[in-house]
Amino acid sequence: MSTILIRGGTVVTAEQTRRADVLCQDGIITAVGDALDVPAGAEVVDAGGCYVMPGGIDPHTHMELPFMGTVTTEDFFSGTAAGFAGGTTTIIDFVIPNPKQSLMEAYHTWRGWAEKAAGDYSFHVAVTWWDESVHRDMGTLVADHGVNSFKHFMAYKNAIMADDETLVNSFQRCLELGAIPTVHAENGELVFQLQKKLLAQGLTGPEAHPLSRPPEVEGEAANRAIQVAKVFGVPVYIVHVSAKEALAAIERGQNDGQRVFGEVLAGHLLIDDSVYRNPDWDFAAGHVMSPPFRPKEHQDALWRGLQAGHLHTTATDHCCFCAEQKAMGRNDFTKIPNGTAGIEDRMTALWTHGVNTGRLTMNEFVAVTSANAAKIFNLYPRKGSVSVGADADLVVWDPKATKTISAKTQMQKVGLNIFEGMTVTGTPAYTLSQGRIVHALGESRAVRGAGRYINRPAFPPVYEAVSKRNALNVPVAVER
Amino acid sequence: MSTILIRGGTVVTAEQTRRADVLCQDGIITAVGDALDVPAGAEVVDAGGCYVMPGGIDPHTHMELPFMGTVTTEDFFSGTAAGFAGGTTTIIDFVIPNPKQSLMEAYHTWRGWAEKAAGDYSFHVAVTWWDESVHRDMGTLVADHGVNSFKHFMAYKNAIMADDETLVNSFQRCLELGAIPTVHAENGELVFQLQKKLLAQGLTGPEAHPLSRPPEVEGEAANRAIQVAKVFGVPVYIVHVSAKEALAAIERGQNDGQRVFGEVLAGHLLIDDSVYRNPDWDFAAGHVMSPPFRPKEHQDALWRGLQAGHLHTTATDHCCFCAEQKAMGRNDFTKIPNGTAGIEDRMTALWTHGVNTGRLTMNEFVAVTSANAAKIFNLYPRKGSVSVGADADLVVWDPKATKTISAKTQMQKVGLNIFEGMTVTGTPAYTLSQGRIVHALGESRAVRGAGRYINRPAFPPVYEAVSKRNALNVPVAVER
Amino acid sequence: MSTILIRGGTVVTAEQTRRADVLCQDGIITAVGDALDVPAGAEVVDAGGCYVMPGGIDPHTHMELPFMGTVTTEDFFSGTAAGFAGGTTTIIDFVIPNPKQSLMEAYHTWRGWAEKAAGDYSFHVAVTWWDESVHRDMGTLVADHGVNSFKHFMAYKNAIMADDETLVNSFQRCLELGAIPTVHAENGELVFQLQKKLLAQGLTGPEAHPLSRPPEVEGEAANRAIQVAKVFGVPVYIVHVSAKEALAAIERGQNDGQRVFGEVLAGHLLIDDSVYRNPDWDFAAGHVMSPPFRPKEHQDALWRGLQAGHLHTTATDHCCFCAEQKAMGRNDFTKIPNGTAGIEDRMTALWTHGVNTGRLTMNEFVAVTSANAAKIFNLYPRKGSVSVGADADLVVWDPKATKTISAKTQMQKVGLNIFEGMTVTGTPAYTLSQGRIVHALGESRAVRGAGRYINRPAFPPVYEAVSKRNALNVPVAVER
Amino acid sequence: MSTILIRGGTVVTAEQTRRADVLCQDGIITAVGDALDVPAGAEVVDAGGCYVMPGGIDPHTHMELPFMGTVTTEDFFSGTAAGFAGGTTTIIDFVIPNPKQSLMEAYHTWRGWAEKAAGDYSFHVAVTWWDESVHRDMGTLVADHGVNSFKHFMAYKNAIMADDETLVNSFQRCLELGAIPTVHAENGELVFQLQKKLLAQGLTGPEAHPLSRPPEVEGEAANRAIQVAKVFGVPVYIVHVSAKEALAAIERGQNDGQRVFGEVLAGHLLIDDSVYRNPDWDFAAGHVMSPPFRPKEHQDALWRGLQAGHLHTTATDHCCFCAEQKAMGRNDFTKIPNGTAGIEDRMTALWTHGVNTGRLTMNEFVAVTSANAAKIFNLYPRKGSVSVGADADLVVWDPKATKTISAKTQMQKVGLNIFEGMTVTGTPAYTLSQGRIVHALGESRAVRGAGRYINRPAFPPVYEAVSKRNALNVPVAVER
Repeated sequence: MSTILIRGGTVVTAEQTRRADVLCQDGIITAVGDALDVPAGAEVVDAGGCYVMPGGIDPHTHMELPFMGTVTTEDFFSGTAAGFAGGTTTIIDFVIPNPKQSLMEAYHTWRGWAEKAAGDYSFHVAVTWWDESVHRDMGTLVADHGVNSFKHFMAYKNAIMADDETLVNSFQRCLELGAIPTVHAENGELVFQLQKKLLAQGLTGPEAHPLSRPPEVEGEAANRAIQVAKVFGVPVYIVHVSAKEALAAIERGQNDGQRVFGEVLAGHLLIDDSVYRNPDWDFAAGHVMSPPFRPKEHQDALWRGLQAGHLHTTATDHCCFCAEQKAMGRNDFTKIPNGTAGIEDRMTALWTHGVNTGRLTMNEFVAVTSANAAKIFNLYPRKGSVSVGADADLVVWDPKATKTISAKTQMQKVGLNIFEGMTVTGTPAYTLSQGRIVHALGESRAVRGAGRYINRPAFPPVYEAVSKRNALNVPVAVER
Repeated sequence: MSTILIRGGTVVTAEQTRRADVLCQDGIITAVGDALDVPAGAEVVDAGGCYVMPGGIDPHTHMELPFMGTVTTEDFFSGTAAGFAGGTTTIIDFVIPNPKQSLMEAYHTWRGWAEKAAGDYSFHVAVTWWDESVHRDMGTLVADHGVNSFKHFMAYKNAIMADDETLVNSFQRCLELGAIPTVHAENGELVFQLQKKLLAQGLTGPEAHPLSRPPEVEGEAANRAIQVAKVFGVPVYIVHVSAKEALAAIERGQNDGQRVFGEVLAGHLLIDDSVYRNPDWDFAAGHVMSPPFRPKEHQDALWRGLQAGHLHTTATDHCCFCAEQKAMGRNDFTKIPNGTAGIEDRMTALWTHGVNTGRLTMNEFVAVTSANAAKIFNLYPRKGSVSVGADADLVVWDPKATKTISAKTQMQKVGLNIFEGMTVTGTPAYTLSQGRIVHALGESRAVRGAGRYINRPAFPPVYEAVSKRNALNVPVAVER
Repeated sequence: MSTILIRGGTVVTAEQTRRADVLCQDGIITAVGDALDVPAGAEVVDAGGCYVMPGGIDPHTHMELPFMGTVTTEDFFSGTAAGFAGGTTTIIDFVIPNPKQSLMEAYHTWRGWAEKAAGDYSFHVAVTWWDESVHRDMGTLVADHGVNSFKHFMAYKNAIMADDETLVNSFQRCLELGAIPTVHAENGELVFQLQKKLLAQGLTGPEAHPLSRPPEVEGEAANRAIQVAKVFGVPVYIVHVSAKEALAAIERGQNDGQRVFGEVLAGHLLIDDSVYRNPDWDFAAGHVMSPPFRPKEHQDALWRGLQAGHLHTTATDHCCFCAEQKAMGRNDFTKIPNGTAGIEDRMTALWTHGVNTGRLTMNEFVAVTSANAAKIFNLYPRKGSVSVGADADLVVWDPKATKTISAKTQMQKVGLNIFEGMTVTGTPAYTLSQGRIVHALGESRAVRGAGRYINRPAFPPVYEAVSKRNALNVPVAVER
Repeated sequence: MSTILIRGGTVVTAEQTRRADVLCQDGIITAVGDALDVPAGAEVVDAGGCYVMPGGIDPHTHMELPFMGTVTTEDFFSGTAAGFAGGTTTIIDFVIPNPKQSLMEAYHTWRGWAEKAAGDYSFHVAVTWWDESVHRDMGTLVADHGVNSFKHFMAYKNAIMADDETLVNSFQRCLELGAIPTVHAENGELVFQLQKKLLAQGLTGPEAHPLSRPPEVEGEAANRAIQVAKVFGVPVYIVHVSAKEALAAIERGQNDGQRVFGEVLAGHLLIDDSVYRNPDWDFAAGHVMSPPFRPKEHQDALWRGLQAGHLHTTATDHCCFCAEQKAMGRNDFTKIPNGTAGIEDRMTALWTHGVNTGRLTMNEFVAVTSANAAKIFNLYPRKGSVSVGADADLVVWDPKATKTISAKTQMQKVGLNIFEGMTVTGTPAYTLSQGRIVHALGESRAVRGAGRYINRPAFPPVYEAVSKRNALNVPVAVER
């Protein structure tokens, strides 16, 4: 099978930086070292002047998602191929059952859709309702299907919102199973009533979207989820943290010794809420996602959260709707399908504004784009590392290469790029998935269906301590 | 009518301390000054060596409350008379409609019960459910019945719990009406599931009570209520803050410029959770109330909260159940009626542990036992001050008098005193209500039915700024 | 002597708001009540549509101050007269001995200068060095001269800076004496080295001034002073808090139950640091003061600090230098005399941006412009209240009157007004000092030398609790 | 030379846990993998049931230290040998010049003393005073002698205390050189005056020691150092954090995006201040060290700090004085030589109370006992990792082995063990240094003089971002 030697580069991992060649054979890294010999028949990739890093992991994508009465434009093939263009080689997408729908049924449906993926993928499964079957199916998914994370939407009332009863039950179940609950933290009741109030005031345009989801809505829900987790001693992962209030809730949990993990989107780090006041409706609506983009002070806080290690992963919530789909909400902003793209740009945007500005070290960049997600979701060191035995998912990063991001030149299947016009310095020269070059010097070599479903076992070592603490901590009745 | 001259004392208010006589005529203070003349026919009270302070206001009592299948042992007469013994001359009790019960009906029921009160009283009205009639009745109560505060129980699932929908609707309605929402902050879903879990583990005794309501349960709910209030710009008042987590949530709100008020019970300041592990079931059960007594670190935090001005009022949640009633939960702690007494001891206990220890100044003592409650609930300066025109509700406080608190010697109609054995220094020599001596040198002169219902108008000046801010803050649609 | 009846107004104090007339006789308020009779010979002031409030207290002014090689342009007469124009009737100025100069000598010098004042005044005395004579003189000043507050400059190295040795000694001495230490919180060593560094980089203009005193410089010093105070159990007062970092240090102290008081300048609430980057050197230099004006986020924090009660007083640090004086630093920003004016505008600016915007209630306005300073510095209720027996220092406030602030029309003796062009709504119609009208409808009636030195006794009740706590807390040796 | 194969163990690093053999040849790790072949002549260590971890790094020891008029009892040989017994294979000790002593001279003196060490060692150099020669010598030490960290004592007034002038100068110099300033954070002036005050009160025993150094003394100094670092953009490392106030200062820095590192001693995590009130003077004095042991609430906070990643390293401040030396302070606690032992027990105590209780994962244990120190002080991956090319400094850890710590059975050359009587589970079976077994099954094989001085290059990657940020951030003069 294929043999590739990446030669002359500097290997950067979350731990260290060193000159080394990397040998990939049959999809696996088989050697990392100085001046490796070129095996017979090996293809040689020249990484001179480049950094060789683990391929990115995007732990938050929505390919082919049926949502708000339509389906996202990006499918698992096009989406993972766009990921390759940006250096991302693994995604964790979401199975989202409808309320009352069987989790197993939904899971199998998504597995079917995902078979066309070009890159490796895995699934979080959403818990959108509660009964005994959900309790049972969670067990089955963990035991037999490599699922170790469950998603809870605290928003979207009258649709997929998990109320407190569902949340509390599911968190306890996660603890039993060694799975981690993840949370979309927005208070759905508040959003619902604010939407009604704004519409009643005649505010029907996209400028009302952020007003219906102010930072308090997110901060409240994040705090609630974290406190529920604390009561039961479950670790918890907050997706797409966009508001300083939510970050503060995470910090409070961490300061108490809790295992609380935070994810931030490239978009929330770099884009502010002025987009919603743009006079071009399509532009404004194109940026409608939840939580919304925020005033600039929140961006500063999010960067500091990454620097301080209070936020662990970066993602995109890649969820593409075209202009025609967005137009469904032309007279009512609550009907604009929520979602924006980003999988193609996450790593370059983050390198440019993180590493080049001195906010993050290169090692921290690898941590927050790849290694940390791998550890939290138990893919490490198969993913997220450059080590012998790991999957040969790699990106050869050219720190001098520069380009200007634009919807016109992107692979993403959507008409608008939220980073439009941003000039980035530092882009992938080559991306490898399973030891094959899948993107080279701007050209896609993605193969439909080449991606594999990746099992993620329960009880990840990164929060092993939580289980032990929980086990030791049994209350005792008073003898009377 | 009656004329009383309180002579030779030192008047202490929230603002200042000065030697002055106080003249009370026909229920009203008519003069405060040096060496006042004794009017013809006046009774003279010798206040030499004593402090003359506004009578205490207990903003949180439950007289004759039907709760958990029984009714509290203390009625409006006995309860207000016990208050007089401790220097408290005004109570604010709670009308608590059952879910689906009309607010007006419940209000009138409570008004009937309260007619026997010896001291002045007013009512918070609980919002335990939501529909258009509740919306309407809230308006009626504010406009026509002198109610300016509504209570929300975030605990007691399947009973009087206000869910988020009720909470968010009611808070908005309060804002319109110029009323203040008050909140019992405990996450009812968590309590419910923890109770089930503990019972399933065989923990059926009172020692399980605090385990079913850990501090996070309170901190979460307090934060949620405060964030909801913040979104709409409503002031909010958190009752019986017992946990440092809830205090921290209040501080965060205040630091953001919100008008958040906090109440603390004398019991939570002085008693810790070891009571629940007492081998005497009756003793342990006798202390069951919610939120429960907490580990000592929380007491330290609560005192600091009072000192810092983050907590504004002190109360008792006076809610008496006798041993037979408590015994309803002998095999299941969740069935022990929740409640403890305290109206007779609040002020002496607080003086002893607050003023005598140097934690609080005397002026701060008056603020937190009387004046602040009067301001927040719009009784000031009629109540809570020693000024011309104010109600002659006064306490002549002897700072040298000492006694040991005991159930054996108390007026409170309950068999257990949570402060049993505490020696206090500083007690009321005389208590006056409406210009009459109602408790003198240890002897009650309370008169059944002498108390009056006190109207509390909407829009108290203490949070007038909130309304103005809210009015100025109207979002505008983008022109496209 | 003089009798004035202020008729038809609404009296606003820190405590309440009510319709009442106010009678002033011989410099004292002799009646407050409804529809008072007009005594024979009384002058009647029509306060219809107006608020009658205690005259403002500015606890931080520098009249006739010799500083940085020159003397401020405003003397005690002109300065207090300008105060009258703005509703301020009392100032607390600063005696600042040179290092090694006797405190008593400096005190008497300042007393001499102040005799020309039109309004009442008092003095903080600075402790700029330490030896036994300073220790002794502090005692004399408290016992015999009505001084109950001492100032410590943590900045101005090689001049008046109090090093840690002086600070720690003086704080302990204050505790013994019942005086309150006040602190100018900036780390002088950091300022010194940053100034050197900036000059070495060729940054010699006023734009370097804020760079030499970043917020951390203030936050560090505030925290240090507060922690020193905490160790000894002394109350402490931080002057001119300008940075959110310093405010946070204050909040931490308060949260620990410490008595920490914070003062904020009208300028820091309303002006940002862009003034230093103005291309007009005179304009930029005219704004040079320490701590400097800050980026806008600090203003938001300061307003919230006032709202939350974490900041207690508002002041001006009124310290006037004309353009010629400022020009001393044309080639070296460290030689620009530090100081700006403001006594004439503090109250109108604060009313406009505080009360009219809904940030503060009217009662809070009175608290932060007058009553709180009176309480902290033990002038209450003689100053800061509208009550019988108090000094008749009053302002009749017309909430509808409007004007545009300008250096061209001001009384302040300085060429630049930091609020230039600000339109205010709400200004004094009449100002009374000692029961005399000293400013009426825009016209000054200030009388040179009419002001009195006001003694301030030690051990103010507002932090009486601190002394008691300290006295109770004596460590004991272990018996071995 | 020597070849050792560690077979059958589970390799635990900061990153991962996996079954693997480890081959050590000529002092270096040459292979890590499954079922490695046994090379000819190799010694085989059976690691079945054991964990194979990087040898511990103790970044804070004082061997042969002349201090307070005497010299510690433990020399570089005995001390490093005791370290081997506990699994620690590298120490970073301190060169401490006297004020006015040349840094180079002191450095060479310590290098001489250290030649007898059995294990590898490196040096922090203290900056105890400031002039041009210190500035120059710091450069020489970094450029030519492998020093990348400088220590600053904020305590010990009139001895080795660095005042603010020294601190600010040295921090700036560190930034230029790519070195990290480390700080002993206690306010020396406060300690000095509190000592005087306590002695004057007749408190001369060891119980006065903690009273002279309350938590505020540490919190203040930590905050000051961190703010100074922030102003210049230097990373900073706080040694022996013992108080929650200091931890809070660290967290604030980290929340601002600063690179602030915190070290905690095993003693501070596990021992409380009751030791100072022990009636046995020798026992109490034997525990005198600075900062002192603290009330239990601080221990809880420190553990949470480790869990949250706010504290990065664990150390001992190993500094041994025998009973005769301690007795120098029999009549004056300020003359008791400060210091306690611990190098032999740090890792077992931390494993027992950290890993076995579920506070820390095993990977976190490796991070805080070894890898993090290696990264911060630029020894990684040579030290702190189990990877090909790294020094073969390893510990084979038997998680089931148990022992009771006692001064009677220890190697440490001191008569008292602060962990006396603690039963630990999890101890080193074998310790390897430079690929040689130096401690085996309780028996020392340490070789005098076998240790090497380890150079630590400047500009560690872990805070590379700081330098970049600093370089980008140049202020510009305004054109006028």
